[in-house]
Amino acid sequence: MIIQFKPNTDSALIDNFCARQRTTNPNVYQIKHHVAVIGEKAIDFTPAEEEVIAATTTDEPSYVLGSRLFQPENTVIELAHSTIGGADFTVMAGPCSVESADHIMAMAKVAKEGGATILRGGAYKPRTSPYSFQGMGEAGLKALRKAADAYQMDVVTEVMDETHVDLVAQYTDIFQIGARNMQNFSLLKAVGKTNVPVALKRGLAATVDDLLNAAEYIAANGNQQIMLLERGIRTFDNHYTRNTFDLNAVPVLQKLTHYPVLIDPSHATGEWDLVTPMARAGVATGASGLQVEIHDHPEKAFSDGAQALKPATYLEMCHQVWAVDAVVKQWRH
Amino acid sequence: MIIQFKPNTDSALIDNFCARQRTTNPNVYQIKHHVAVIGEKAIDFTPAEEEVIAATTTDEPSYVLGSRLFQPENTVIELAHSTIGGADFTVMAGPCSVESADHIMAMAKVAKEGGATILRGGAYKPRTSPYSFQGMGEAGLKALRKAADAYQMDVVTEVMDETHVDLVAQYTDIFQIGARNMQNFSLLKAVGKTNVPVALKRGLAATVDDLLNAAEYIAANGNQQIMLLERGIRTFDNHYTRNTFDLNAVPVLQKLTHYPVLIDPSHATGEWDLVTPMARAGVATGASGLQVEIHDHPEKAFSDGAQALKPATYLEMCHQVWAVDAVVKQWRH
Amino acid sequence: MIIQFKPNTDSALIDNFCARQRTTNPNVYQIKHHVAVIGEKAIDFTPAEEEVIAATTTDEPSYVLGSRLFQPENTVIELAHSTIGGADFTVMAGPCSVESADHIMAMAKVAKEGGATILRGGAYKPRTSPYSFQGMGEAGLKALRKAADAYQMDVVTEVMDETHVDLVAQYTDIFQIGARNMQNFSLLKAVGKTNVPVALKRGLAATVDDLLNAAEYIAANGNQQIMLLERGIRTFDNHYTRNTFDLNAVPVLQKLTHYPVLIDPSHATGEWDLVTPMARAGVATGASGLQVEIHDHPEKAFSDGAQALKPATYLEMCHQVWAVDAVVKQWRH
Amino acid sequence: MIIQFKPNTDSALIDNFCARQRTTNPNVYQIKHHVAVIGEKAIDFTPAEEEVIAATTTDEPSYVLGSRLFQPENTVIELAHSTIGGADFTVMAGPCSVESADHIMAMAKVAKEGGATILRGGAYKPRTSPYSFQGMGEAGLKALRKAADAYQMDVVTEVMDETHVDLVAQYTDIFQIGARNMQNFSLLKAVGKTNVPVALKRGLAATVDDLLNAAEYIAANGNQQIMLLERGIRTFDNHYTRNTFDLNAVPVLQKLTHYPVLIDPSHATGEWDLVTPMARAGVATGASGLQVEIHDHPEKAFSDGAQALKPATYLEMCHQVWAVDAVVKQWRH
Repeated sequence: MIIQFKPNTDSALIDNFCARQRTTNPNVYQIKHHVAVIGEKAIDFTPAEEEVIAATTTDEPSYVLGSRLFQPENTVIELAHSTIGGADFTVMAGPCSVESADHIMAMAKVAKEGGATILRGGAYKPRTSPYSFQGMGEAGLKALRKAADAYQMDVVTEVMDETHVDLVAQYTDIFQIGARNMQNFSLLKAVGKTNVPVALKRGLAATVDDLLNAAEYIAANGNQQIMLLERGIRTFDNHYTRNTFDLNAVPVLQKLTHYPVLIDPSHATGEWDLVTPMARAGVATGASGLQVEIHDHPEKAFSDGAQALKPATYLEMCHQVWAVDAVVKQWRH
Repeated sequence: MIIQFKPNTDSALIDNFCARQRTTNPNVYQIKHHVAVIGEKAIDFTPAEEEVIAATTTDEPSYVLGSRLFQPENTVIELAHSTIGGADFTVMAGPCSVESADHIMAMAKVAKEGGATILRGGAYKPRTSPYSFQGMGEAGLKALRKAADAYQMDVVTEVMDETHVDLVAQYTDIFQIGARNMQNFSLLKAVGKTNVPVALKRGLAATVDDLLNAAEYIAANGNQQIMLLERGIRTFDNHYTRNTFDLNAVPVLQKLTHYPVLIDPSHATGEWDLVTPMARAGVATGASGLQVEIHDHPEKAFSDGAQALKPATYLEMCHQVWAVDAVVKQWRH
Repeated sequence: MIIQFKPNTDSALIDNFCARQRTTNPNVYQIKHHVAVIGEKAIDFTPAEEEVIAATTTDEPSYVLGSRLFQPENTVIELAHSTIGGADFTVMAGPCSVESADHIMAMAKVAKEGGATILRGGAYKPRTSPYSFQGMGEAGLKALRKAADAYQMDVVTEVMDETHVDLVAQYTDIFQIGARNMQNFSLLKAVGKTNVPVALKRGLAATVDDLLNAAEYIAANGNQQIMLLERGIRTFDNHYTRNTFDLNAVPVLQKLTHYPVLIDPSHATGEWDLVTPMARAGVATGASGLQVEIHDHPEKAFSDGAQALKPATYLEMCHQVWAVDAVVKQWRH
Repeated sequence: MIIQFKPNTDSALIDNFCARQRTTNPNVYQIKHHVAVIGEKAIDFTPAEEEVIAATTTDEPSYVLGSRLFQPENTVIELAHSTIGGADFTVMAGPCSVESADHIMAMAKVAKEGGATILRGGAYKPRTSPYSFQGMGEAGLKALRKAADAYQMDVVTEVMDETHVDLVAQYTDIFQIGARNMQNFSLLKAVGKTNVPVALKRGLAATVDDLLNAAEYIAANGNQQIMLLERGIRTFDNHYTRNTFDLNAVPVLQKLTHYPVLIDPSHATGEWDLVTPMARAGVATGASGLQVEIHDHPEKAFSDGAQALKPATYLEMCHQVWAVDAVVKQWRH
């Protein structure tokens, strides 16, 4: 059940209500004057409570905390150099893998030049084959942090493993959970217990509800700083593109949830020459930001070279993205 | 084999070459100084021919006539009130079904007001169930034509059946081939023998190559006035939307073919409140136009009411679409 | 509404009831003591009728005539040499295309030897590319008929076009509607007006409900002699097989409909060496029959050689299929 | 590169060769007289080695150790009460979740009665929602072990988390890796470092190659005791069934890999009344075994009740499965 108290309700009354519920229910959550008591279909309210209740519903979806029923206002995530989910569009750019300290430094310079405020780069890489490059590990994290700091950028990087959560948290501003780990529930719980924002990528076969339920694992463990990334789904249409870019999901998610929704045209297409038109399309849907992969020598990239933009192409993409954003931002959800 | 003669080659030489090939091969096609001799891997050229051949290739795809190898320049389709595939974006709007003479007239007024130059409306309806409304037939065609004429618009309407091709041709400016008939090869051949432009909609399970090969049935029968419509594909992701909108296909098709590529956000989403953001996204990809369904009383529509825009919503969608187009048109393929 | 009269109800009463309904509803159908009045939610019954009504329902699916609510007993289709939908398993075998009179005669001999009672072969071929072999046409039909007659077999062959229905009917015992034409509603209506049994193949993106609604177009036009063929759907899993064989659909369809359900392991796999294990699997589900493609020289086949079984492999497949059938037939639906 | 030495080659020579390769390549693997040196395209053999090399190939797939090129013979997994991958068919049965010590004991009795030799039951449950039952944990493992021992059965149970690997290993005979964790590479590496057999379930969007590469993570870490489970993939066809059962994958996998391939008709259909026909179908493909969920009161099951068989239905399913197996086992790969 979600209980919506009247806006000016005494906070002590709400606190008392929550405390009483917690004696019998482990899952009681509050945001301002909205309270969710998970799984309850009927609650005995005191007369004083009844007087200040504006509305109740037992029709909430299973992803209660992520739903707009529980929190109508957009979640806005504030970092040192970026705001995600507010009025502005956010660009995250960088190479697929951190390849060396020098390389990530050079890529950070390019990323910043295009207008990115967040530097991406993988230090732990989820690779289909065990014999492929698996990432630089902590040395990569250090190089990534140093490069971001040099250009006053925030860092997003993937954490693949709950045993790495504390380590990665020392270097990153945002945990990325990759598509293959979207339903690695142990990992979701672990990042849910931190206070580091999480970028959760949609799995290849995940429905919109699956994605929101995965986010709920993070939120239910205490971390509501979540953003969602659409990065392509797997369909029969996989000859000219690596995945099918499900841009419908952007406005669908914006209806259902208050978390910011971002797009990843690099993985969603898998082909560098499709990234720019699809980045334009993604901005035009009203998404809150995008993540894009760049590399100065894609043919030599340690991973995913086919989808990486060269610096000049990236800068042109940014130019086009900002131009579309200037028109579209007035209609952003 | 595709033979590219030098640009200033004597047309008589090319004509002679084609005529000679036709004595042994039924499938010889020419556009300007490009000639396709389908299926040939080796040709004996005369010395005079060899002198004026710029290049040959036997690497053409199966959709030879639709490929940019055969025709590098965009196909531009000129109608009385519209140009499709040129510098400008084209809007086709109207109700799913023609429901009455008065109704289509009222809808034409709305469509025109938003900037549409082409009026859509179905007189023969491909319905999943035999017991559903099957369309007004010729009376619907007449009403549609009259409404379009009243507002100086062109007409697009579906033809479902080769026996109706001549009848429908009397009323329409563009034949629409629906998704379910995309591989109805008898119908494709029949419209290929007319000189009426064809809007070919992608089937729910059609790959990009399937779509281009279906278009080739039209072209190989003599009609190169073809436009392609992406209208959503069928995937696991079908709970909040009717289909998955494969916008990746827009730039993919633009690389492979010279035919104009349009989008249909009404069918691709199936939900009216998703149409506007996805129309913006579609324009931003660089598509040449869009088709959209409108209705003044969607809840009473004879078909597909859930996806129809009310007039005010349609006008706002157009406002947004033209605003994005103003920025994006410089990057259109 | 479906009205179930008591089993021993006077047929004149039922006839009168139907006649009265037909004065206001074009879609009234009867099988024995079951009557469907399509789309009606409330009917005024006479007292005499009320006395002999066992049950009514307005919960029928859109494919009323195909549903087990309307006809609980299996449809059994009787041909000169075959019974489809009864206790026995039916094998349809032959080459993809009729290639010559001699070839189809030789293939008929092989088909019969394995236990097939129905000879398949395409005279009109739905090919992805317009430049591929399109079939022998009427000459192919004649050769096919002659070969079947020589071995006391029935004929199944595809009709692609409503204008060919009368011609093909002169030569075949079963019309096949191919997957690409599953929702070619003009064609479905046309075969529905004949009294020739129809084998309707499931489209690549057709849901079970789509398939049953397509069958309903045939039934609603008067022809209830329908069988359904599962032949693979299109999914992301298309590297080692042409399609995904949806064998779940066999028991699902058997629950919903009384029409016989058959399988086509040749198209569902696209690879000859997978046909035998998947034929065994198909029989084991409880399907009523299978269709399989054979060729003595697959590498020279005019179409679909990769999935054709050579004669010896076909005979071994039949041996295994009959062995599984001997065990499974007791559990056939 | 895979090097196939002659069968009677001196093992010291092969050992020396491997040791030399390991000085420069971390990924050198040997099975009998086959050696894989991962990623090498050219190797300098000594004259003595060249004399005893039967063949070499650099055409191996990325899942080298799992491929039949590296190990032509089937992997056979021997447990105390079961043999998986040999001549016999193996049944794993039990409830979705371990619900109590008494319940799992009662279910073990039923499972054994049908002929199952392996008891399944989840103590750690991967649930879509964080608010659903998450499993009994170690108490569940203890109860499961006790029930299996009481009926002389082996145990299979899911491990979801690398931090639980040691704990779960104390109670189980087979680790199960669930579909959602198929590409949780940290977990795959962790179970790869044990000597406990692993049942790896195919992910909902995993291709056959993805599955084999995931298995390679286990094998490359030292554990070759792997079996693969097909349990349905996610497609558009999800109305009457939870997933699409990709039985084509059984013979496809059997061609490519030596690991035993099993089927899970419970998850692949999601509906109890489809399990029996699809179990028959799965046996008929030639799979090495099946896993099935049972429950005495499915409507009260803690998880996945809709797909659980009641005891009597399970026993009938087993009866049918053994009957089909008796015919089919002669053709098992």
